[in-house]
Amino acid sequence: MTSAPSRKKQPQRVRRQLLEVAARLSLEQGVAAVTLDAVSQAAGVSKGGLLHHFPNKLALLDALFDDLVARFDSALDEAMAGDDVEKGRFTRAYLGVCFALDAEAEAQGWQMLTIALLAEPHLKERWREWVARRSAQFAATDSSPSCLLARFAADGVWLSDLMRSHDIEAPTRAILLQKLNALSLE
Amino acid sequence: MTSAPSRKKQPQRVRRQLLEVAARLSLEQGVAAVTLDAVSQAAGVSKGGLLHHFPNKLALLDALFDDLVARFDSALDEAMAGDDVEKGRFTRAYLGVCFALDAEAEAQGWQMLTIALLAEPHLKERWREWVARRSAQFAATDSSPSCLLARFAADGVWLSDLMRSHDIEAPTRAILLQKLNALSLE
Repeated sequence: MTSAPSRKKQPQRVRRQLLEVAARLSLEQGVAAVTLDAVSQAAGVSKGGLLHHFPNKLALLDALFDDLVARFDSALDEAMAGDDVEKGRFTRAYLGVCFALDAEAEAQGWQMLTIALLAEPHLKERWREWVARRSAQFAATDSSPSCLLARFAADGVWLSDLMRSHDIEAPTRAILLQKLNALSLE
Repeated sequence: MTSAPSRKKQPQRVRRQLLEVAARLSLEQGVAAVTLDAVSQAAGVSKGGLLHHFPNKLALLDALFDDLVARFDSALDEAMAGDDVEKGRFTRAYLGVCFALDAEAEAQGWQMLTIALLAEPHLKERWREWVARRSAQFAATDSSPSCLLARFAADGVWLSDLMRSHDIEAPTRAILLQKLNALSLE
């Protein structure tokens, strides 16, 4: 009788656990394997408990997406707050965050998100909306072709980290970031 | 009795058909759904006929990968053959091919490959080998940080095409390609 009440006191912890299980399942077996039954079972949470947090699979995938994008957004906001130069500020934040992801445990979560994004038209559309919203928000400072180019290069580096496809030595990585930061000022 | 003999005369056509079905299944339902039974059934080819071409699932995925990489390689070789400047030649070919993919029906096939790559450690490793081999092959002409940066940006543009995440107008796209080509000469 001790675990059930403590769970009730920590709905956010249960929610987090369900999201982590869903992320792990989507990584290991693809988004198709993320059924409410599978998540409920793997998390050791009753189906009713799961449905309380996520009424259907789409709600679960949306929450997974929201969670990861919220982390990305707050990392971007934090980086922007520490940059006094207005021109290209969003682009430099984007570069910094993407380049830093390889060192973080969180990168694993991003890999999961990408796989989910690629497989799910609904999340692909939501990512498209994020890109459009952020691009419009910083159009005055970050819409030059060089800024766009720099962000695409960051995406490429991020993809390479995710795929572990390139051996980029740390000094080369630093030079790339330096060059891309310079492009953000063009 | 007419279809069976004509099939026997065209083993390459059956092989191609099996690969297309496997690609479609991996796109629609994830790589996990690409079982020999599912491919055999969806292609209307007997299990024995399938096993003649692909003794197991890994052989099928490998063939899918080989097929797409062979197309990529020949597009790269063709682009390089038409470029008289040695410096950055591989990078410009890479840029040209990646930028052109959005307009091609083949892009769909690349999307399938990516999903397969992301999900399958074995294919991720094979892509890593491709990158290492090609990077070594053109180290003398294409290993500058600017060339590397340009290829990463091309990967980012390619990812954006695949995800349909950005609305890049054709003139902006042309400017990006021009800037990246200029980087290949640095």
